Amino acid sequence: MAFSPLVDELVESLRCLPGVGQKTAQRMAFHLLERARSGGVRLSDALSNAMEGVRRCESCQNFSDTEVCGICDNPARSNGTLCVVESPSDLLAIEQAGDYKGSYFVLMGHLSPIDGVGPEEIGIERLLRRVGEDGVTELILATNPTVEGEATAHYISDRLDGSGILITRLAHGIPVGGELGYVDGFTLTHAFRGRKPLLD
Amino acid sequence: MAFSPLVDELVESLRCLPGVGQKTAQRMAFHLLERARSGGVRLSDALSNAMEGVRRCESCQNFSDTEVCGICDNPARSNGTLCVVESPSDLLAIEQAGDYKGSYFVLMGHLSPIDGVGPEEIGIERLLRRVGEDGVTELILATNPTVEGEATAHYISDRLDGSGILITRLAHGIPVGGELGYVDGFTLTHAFRGRKPLLD
Ligand SMILES: [Zn+2]
Ligand SMILES: [Zn+2]
Repeated sequence: MAFSPLVDELVESLRCLPGVGQKTAQRMAFHLLERARSGGVRLSDALSNAMEGVRRCESCQNFSDTEVCGICDNPARSNGTLCVVESPSDLLAIEQAGDYKGSYFVLMGHLSPIDGVGPEEIGIERLLRRVGEDGVTELILATNPTVEGEATAHYISDRLDGSGILITRLAHGIPVGGELGYVDGFTLTHAFRGRKPLLD
Repeated sequence: MAFSPLVDELVESLRCLPGVGQKTAQRMAFHLLERARSGGVRLSDALSNAMEGVRRCESCQNFSDTEVCGICDNPARSNGTLCVVESPSDLLAIEQAGDYKGSYFVLMGHLSPIDGVGPEEIGIERLLRRVGEDGVTELILATNPTVEGEATAHYISDRLDGSGILITRLAHGIPVGGELGYVDGFTLTHAFRGRKPLLD
């Protein structure tokens, strides 16, 4: 844009958001400049604070503002049941369903050898250590019902073979091939209550 | 989110972007945190600089980093031809078509009595002053081919009745009811070249 290097840079920067192309970035920039400058300033501060301050929880790998996150740090949450999810949005969906009161472990991905994502990249050793140290009696493998999610669940289950820990998988109710983060709370609660031991 | 007030605030702030709801804001926040932290920092800076530094050009009303924008300030652009558009994205579409070398006036809207937008809100007096002072010989009314855009064009044309200035409207080629900002450059160039005097 010949008329403003500041607007140019704003449009260009907005394109780092997922699903935002040139036209959408322009529309967003003009909207902020015309009608939502205070919103733009607030977003600038929130971005700067989050990019600087958000790290990984040392216990569950989820995003956290502190060394150990609020869920891991909550004495009211049972450590005996550990729920393994792929992403923070999956954790969030389960939290919003409101029924589960155990702990979590967030893989931040799933096994995907073709993309170079192996057990180390998703923190499997850390998970196994935590299972051993925290006296976990049940491990709920709530990875997505996709090919990669299933493979990841089976890998973890194999690694814990003979450990005596009950390993479960969420019950039917989640649409096959769907994304856990998009399931409504009611379905999710049912899937939790109907979870079953993993069978080979 | 129980796990991070910083992430909460980021998600909430992203919702000031047009078309971004809760789920999309979450997806954007997690994407930035997981894979694009430097992009997030860059966006934070760009937002802060633009919200603070972008103002309106005193001559054409378009967004500008300086008192008078780069287009108004360019001696190679003819002041004799003035093109009136509704928004910066319309101006941008015409600039990207590359054929037009005159000046612009950006209304930042169109007449819409039902929304309380009258001649004053879109700078009609400033436009008429500029037309008088700059020795404009042709005024191209490139408002959108919508009901409000047509009404705005007719209003401006009426106000200049008897001034001896040639008043034109873009030629056929723009889809009726469409948004000028979404027309391809080729069509736009043709519409410019085929512009015709406004007939009542
Ligand atoms: Zn944690
Ligand atoms: Zn200007």
